[in-house]
Amino acid sequence: MKAVGLYEYLPIEAEDSFLDVTLETPKPSGHDILVQVQAISINPVDTKQRAPKDKVETTPRILGWDAVGIITEIGEEVELFQVGDAVYYAGDVTRQGSYAEFQLVDERLVGLKPKNLSIEEAAAMPLTLITAWEALFDRIRLIPDADAGKNILIINGAGGVGSIATQLAVWAGLEVITTASRDETVNWCKEQGATHIINHREALLPQLNALGFANVDYILCLHNTDAYWDTMQEIIAPEGHICSIVELENPVTMSLIKDKSVTVSYEFMFTRSKYDTIDKVRQHDILTKAAQLFENGFLKSTWNQTLQPMNAATIKEAHRIIESGKSIGKLVVKGFE
Amino acid sequence: MKAVGLYEYLPIEAEDSFLDVTLETPKPSGHDILVQVQAISINPVDTKQRAPKDKVETTPRILGWDAVGIITEIGEEVELFQVGDAVYYAGDVTRQGSYAEFQLVDERLVGLKPKNLSIEEAAAMPLTLITAWEALFDRIRLIPDADAGKNILIINGAGGVGSIATQLAVWAGLEVITTASRDETVNWCKEQGATHIINHREALLPQLNALGFANVDYILCLHNTDAYWDTMQEIIAPEGHICSIVELENPVTMSLIKDKSVTVSYEFMFTRSKYDTIDKVRQHDILTKAAQLFENGFLKSTWNQTLQPMNAATIKEAHRIIESGKSIGKLVVKGFE
Repeated sequence: MKAVGLYEYLPIEAEDSFLDVTLETPKPSGHDILVQVQAISINPVDTKQRAPKDKVETTPRILGWDAVGIITEIGEEVELFQVGDAVYYAGDVTRQGSYAEFQLVDERLVGLKPKNLSIEEAAAMPLTLITAWEALFDRIRLIPDADAGKNILIINGAGGVGSIATQLAVWAGLEVITTASRDETVNWCKEQGATHIINHREALLPQLNALGFANVDYILCLHNTDAYWDTMQEIIAPEGHICSIVELENPVTMSLIKDKSVTVSYEFMFTRSKYDTIDKVRQHDILTKAAQLFENGFLKSTWNQTLQPMNAATIKEAHRIIESGKSIGKLVVKGFE
Repeated sequence: MKAVGLYEYLPIEAEDSFLDVTLETPKPSGHDILVQVQAISINPVDTKQRAPKDKVETTPRILGWDAVGIITEIGEEVELFQVGDAVYYAGDVTRQGSYAEFQLVDERLVGLKPKNLSIEEAAAMPLTLITAWEALFDRIRLIPDADAGKNILIINGAGGVGSIATQLAVWAGLEVITTASRDETVNWCKEQGATHIINHREALLPQLNALGFANVDYILCLHNTDAYWDTMQEIIAPEGHICSIVELENPVTMSLIKDKSVTVSYEFMFTRSKYDTIDKVRQHDILTKAAQLFENGFLKSTWNQTLQPMNAATIKEAHRIIESGKSIGKLVVKGFE
C-alpha cells in the first residue's frame, strides 16, 4: 500500500520531513478492523508528533489521527462492524496513523460515518469531536439540559476543538463565550453558535464584566495554558470547573483554586487508547451519538479546506498551514493518486 | 454573654493568645438564627485563623467553626427552623465563631442535630463531615452505589476529615485505603471502615502494588499536598480524580495529570458561605442527610476527647493539642461555667 511516512523527525521544510513510501498492507486480528482510508484531517497533534527530535525509525512512522474510510477486513473478535461499513475515527497515537491507503484501528475507537456528511466533512471531525466531547461531558461532566443556562468560556474558539466544543456546549444548553481577535475568526465563532466573543489580546475580566458576567461557570482552555493560568483562576466562579487540553510548560500555583473550591481537569483524547482503559469503548459511543446529532442537524462539520492528492508534498503543505497557527476550522487531505 | 476571644494573633503559649471576654448577645435578622451553644469542636482551621500575624482587633475576634446548641431566637426570613430546635453546624469563617454562649449563623448552613448522638458526639462532626461530603460527592462527584467497587486512597485517614471521609466512602460502596503509621492510628482507621492501611513513612506505590492495586481511582489528600503531589500523579489511575483540602505552598507541574486526563479538585468548606454561592443551602442538605445516616447507623461520630469547662485556659489547651498534629478523631470543648 501507499503511505506517507517519516524516518527522522525534521523541520517541515526539510527534504525528508515526509516521504512517499510503500508498505505491506497490514492484516487485522482481535478487535482490529482494516480500513481503506478515503480522507484524513490534520491536527496539532500531528505536528507535535513530528516535532524535530533525535530519534530515527527503522521502518517508516505513519502519522495521522483522523480518518474516514471503508472497512475491508475485520479481526476475529470484531462485534460492532462489518466489511463494507463506512466509518470515521481518530485512532490511537501509539500506533500507525492514517496517512496511508489502509489502516488498522481498534473497533472500540470507531463510529459509523454520519450519513449526511461528505467524506471530507466527516474526516474533519473525529479527533476534535472526541476531545471536545470528553472535555465537556466526561471531564467537566456537563449534563445536557440539566446544566442549561450556565455559561462557559472557550479560549480559542475558532480552532478545531473550539469550533465543535462551541456547538456541543450550545446543544447542551449553555451560553458560550469564546475568544477570538480577527474578523474572520470572530465570524467563524458566531457561526458555531457562540453568543459572545471577547478579544484574547485584551484583559478578559473587564470584557466579561462589560457583558454582565461577574465570572464564568466553566472554562475550556485550548491555547497556552501557562499564559491563561492566572486569568483563569481569577475569572472562574466559586465551585467552577476549568478543563485544559494544552500541557503546562511551567509549574503553577493554585491559591485561588483552593479558596474557590475549583476543579481543574486535563483532557487528552488518547488517554483511553494509550492506557487501554476499561471504558475505551466510550469513544465508539461518542462517535455514534455524535453521528445522530449531525444527522439531526444539531451539529455541523467544521471542515474548512481540502488539499489533494494524498502524498508527501501535500502533507508537508498541510503541516505548514497547521504550524502557522492561523487556521480556522479543519484542514482535510484526500485521496492517493 | 461569655465568650473566648482574641485581640492579637499570638503563639498559643502567650498570656493573651485567648481571653475570657463578655460581649453583648447578638440579635438575629434575615436568615440568621441565634443559637445557645452547648459544645464546640476544634479544627485545624481554628489554629490557622489564630496563627501569629501583625493584626490587632478592636473588638474581640471569636473563633470556632463547629457547634451544637439550641435555637433561642430567629430572624424574620428563617424558614427551616424554629425556636427550641437542637442544631449542629460549622458556620462561616468570615463571621464570629462558636467559642461563645450565643452565636448567629445563617440557617442555610445548619441541620437538626442527629437525635441518637450526644451533644459532644454531634459537636465533633459538622466541619469535618461537610468537608468530607463536599470532597467526595460535590468535587469528586462520587455517586453512592453507582461507583461501588472503585477504590479511594485517603491520605491521613486518622484525622477528623479522614475519619468521616472513610465512613462516607464505605457507605458509598468504595474500597478504602488510608495512610497511617502508628498502631493507634492504624486501629482507628480500621474502626472507621478502611480495608487497607499503608504507611505514609514509606513509598506508597510499592505498598499499593503489594496489595494488588496498580493504581487508585480516587485520592483524597488531607495532609501536605506539596509532599504528595508527585506521588499522587504517579499512583492515580487514568481518568482518575484527586481532591485536596490542603493548600499548596509551592508551584507544581502537571505532566502526568495531562497524559492521564486526570482531574484535580480543591475542597474548602467555607467557599459556599464566603462567596455566598447560589447553592449555599447544600450545607443544610448535607447535615440533614448525614443526620439520617447517623440515626440509621451508617455513620458514627468521630468524637474522641472532651475538655471542659469552656474558657480561655481550656481553649488554649485544645489549640496546643491540635497544633501537635498527633490528635486522633475529634476534640470537643463543652460548657461555660
